[in-house]
Amino acid sequence: LLIVGASGDLLHVPALAHRAASSAVDAATGAFGRLGRCDDDQISEFFARFASSLRDDEAIERILAANGRDVDLAANAGRSTTRLVLTEQMRQDMIVGLEVWRDSPLRRDAPLERIEHGVWSLEARQAPLGVVGFVFEGRPNVVADAAGVVRTGNTVAMRIGSDALGTAEAIVGHALAPALQAAGLPPGTVALVRSPSRAAGWALFDDVRLALAVARGSGPAVAQLGAVARQAGTPVSVHGTGGAWLVVGESARPERLHAAVVNSLDRKVCNTLNVCCLPRSRPDLVGAFLAAVDEAAARRGTVARLHVDRDSQAAIPEQRFTTIVSVTRADGVHEEPAASIIGREGLAVEWEWEQSPELSLVVVDDVAEAIELCNRYSPRFVASLISEDGDEHDRFYAAVDAPFVGDGFTRWVDGQYALATPELGLSNWQSGRLLARGGVLSGSGVHTVRYRATIRDPDLHR
Amino acid sequence: LLIVGASGDLLHVPALAHRAASSAVDAATGAFGRLGRCDDDQISEFFARFASSLRDDEAIERILAANGRDVDLAANAGRSTTRLVLTEQMRQDMIVGLEVWRDSPLRRDAPLERIEHGVWSLEARQAPLGVVGFVFEGRPNVVADAAGVVRTGNTVAMRIGSDALGTAEAIVGHALAPALQAAGLPPGTVALVRSPSRAAGWALFDDVRLALAVARGSGPAVAQLGAVARQAGTPVSVHGTGGAWLVVGESARPERLHAAVVNSLDRKVCNTLNVCCLPRSRPDLVGAFLAAVDEAAARRGTVARLHVDRDSQAAIPEQRFTTIVSVTRADGVHEEPAASIIGREGLAVEWEWEQSPELSLVVVDDVAEAIELCNRYSPRFVASLISEDGDEHDRFYAAVDAPFVGDGFTRWVDGQYALATPELGLSNWQSGRLLARGGVLSGSGVHTVRYRATIRDPDLHR
Repeated sequence: LLIVGASGDLLHVPALAHRAASSAVDAATGAFGRLGRCDDDQISEFFARFASSLRDDEAIERILAANGRDVDLAANAGRSTTRLVLTEQMRQDMIVGLEVWRDSPLRRDAPLERIEHGVWSLEARQAPLGVVGFVFEGRPNVVADAAGVVRTGNTVAMRIGSDALGTAEAIVGHALAPALQAAGLPPGTVALVRSPSRAAGWALFDDVRLALAVARGSGPAVAQLGAVARQAGTPVSVHGTGGAWLVVGESARPERLHAAVVNSLDRKVCNTLNVCCLPRSRPDLVGAFLAAVDEAAARRGTVARLHVDRDSQAAIPEQRFTTIVSVTRADGVHEEPAASIIGREGLAVEWEWEQSPELSLVVVDDVAEAIELCNRYSPRFVASLISEDGDEHDRFYAAVDAPFVGDGFTRWVDGQYALATPELGLSNWQSGRLLARGGVLSGSGVHTVRYRATIRDPDLHR
Repeated sequence: LLIVGASGDLLHVPALAHRAASSAVDAATGAFGRLGRCDDDQISEFFARFASSLRDDEAIERILAANGRDVDLAANAGRSTTRLVLTEQMRQDMIVGLEVWRDSPLRRDAPLERIEHGVWSLEARQAPLGVVGFVFEGRPNVVADAAGVVRTGNTVAMRIGSDALGTAEAIVGHALAPALQAAGLPPGTVALVRSPSRAAGWALFDDVRLALAVARGSGPAVAQLGAVARQAGTPVSVHGTGGAWLVVGESARPERLHAAVVNSLDRKVCNTLNVCCLPRSRPDLVGAFLAAVDEAAARRGTVARLHVDRDSQAAIPEQRFTTIVSVTRADGVHEEPAASIIGREGLAVEWEWEQSPELSLVVVDDVAEAIELCNRYSPRFVASLISEDGDEHDRFYAAVDAPFVGDGFTRWVDGQYALATPELGLSNWQSGRLLARGGVLSGSGVHTVRYRATIRDPDLHR
């Protein structure tokens, strides 16, 4: 039984699931020390061999066979198989990803800073962090993503959603494990949690030997995993709730607002626009916003769905509240009004739309009020200001409680797109600001810092 | 009741102590947002005014009066007052410390990295972290130490050992609070936990609103505080156990070993030499080591106290085990043998000596065996290698599991001495390696990282 202090939840972890998680962490912990005695070229060779195994027709045939069985099982159980099928594109992406790590200039040991004291000197150096625990949804390609942290000398204990477990085991058996062996790296360098139980993920994140816990996706299950790791004292990379906020200043140009809104509603992911704050003094901007929302919907061949703050109702044409539209949700098509009313707490809801762009709207007196709302109701994630006033942008940046701040569309928040580095995880500030790091976790970020002293005067003393 | 999962301890937190901690965190949390709307010059002025209040004779008179009452109370209760008396030297050190922060070039918002994408650019910027919780022993000058994190935009909730609480309240009332007010900073910027109960420290570190928990000193009470903060999901800066390890290679020169040992035993603090590993093949180095230990003791006008690994007994002159010496400990003078036998687990003991240098000794086959022992029994803190072989130093650095690695004396591990920056806390790796940071916590390290996007093409889209 695992008690989550933050929520009061009681999680039941069966002995088998616990053992599966422990075994993986045992293996990865043992491998971490031994990996320190291998050289960087061996690590490059591991990535090269892993990639070429995935190019190899014989290996991929076995992996595809396992994937076929996973897909059949999921389909028979009535679960979605959209992201479960190991497509040729996915295979190529995995290969390219591994070759990026093979060719990456990142090394485990790198100087950060040097302090010269004359008779002695000190270097701060980047060094491997330890065992990274991953919990992934049931997608086959994540095995390659997780392996990236090996480039910087870390080892991996990972759990993959049960739907893809057979595929993951085949990737490990036919590509990853042979690559580790051929490169002379310890077999536990990337260890799979061999359990279909969701409880194995809790047990994994409850293991104090993890140096970092990364969970992908969002929603309550991910938030719960984050809470488990946090109370084990492990740093966490998760974002329980997503959704970006867009604040519009009195000086905003309608064209810029229009473009930002349209381009922030192209699809629903964590950095999609979720709440827009518009200034009361500029009804024309409300019009520009509504036109942009409608255009974003039209581009997807559908209609928009608005949630309007109770006190902002008057700013929106009444017709929106009475028009009934067809909204395609995960569970089918629903007939709903194009706009409906929410209370203030409704601003905290992330709208998980499928086809029809869906977001909240609140009319405010000024940017200061919008910042207050954002700091209170947002998931402290992405905040953008549309304004022609540079000082206002500086004040917004200083006062808004978000790790990602911009001045246009919100969809730039993505490690690959913004930092040109494979993104392992994305954090918001729902559980507070992150000590000494940003919200994008990439392979190079999975490190610690060591100090190495070189003493030239043997009699150096205090 | 607070349950410490790591140890199974049940801590009883009385309602009053809990309220005292909560009030301080309430105040510091509220102040954090408001501090973001003050400018850096106001922060400089706060440090200037705080320093000049401590120069002011009237203010210091009241503070000294409060300190006198604290000292009397502690003395009457039979407790040590050595570090409790607010001496003129301590006053001057506080003033100098505050003026260092006043004049520091550190600012809250500073660029770290810039990524140019042509039509848009991204900056990673350093930003304030949040509320820093401090638990200090009963020393009056720590109020000034803690205030340092305000330079980089953080706020403070601090508990001071009950013996110095009256002094701390006087410093706050007559110097700190007036300085905050005069500079126009929020009154909760530095909030004192107004409770003499040790439980208030547990309640403080159990508060999930802390962004960082720092406890000074070492020992089980500090380790317990660390466990409380860790399970609240808060990053921690503590070192429960101290003591440095010195490993001697087969190529070591006796002179270098001698100097390193003498200079690592000048006084007992956390980076003092605690365990020495000597190579079996070089009995002359054992002799050099013993001579150095004796010299370190002689410099203090006392004798050394050795703990010898059971299997290393033969390497030490038998006479050491039979000679009885007078060892001055915290509780008085003890008659003990100059050397006695310990089992392997004895290597994990930190010898908390007062006057007589006291340490453990183990003879090993080679450096590899010493590294194994160090990784198993040391507090993963300071490790030093004496060797003339450069490759051996590189292998040692790669394989030893310690954040601080050197090639001579061990006492360099100190933020002020090594990095020329006021040290807020020192961490070992007993609870694992630290994500993205080193073991020295200084004011500049108390930050987070934000990303700020500047989008030049308004139609930027994915």
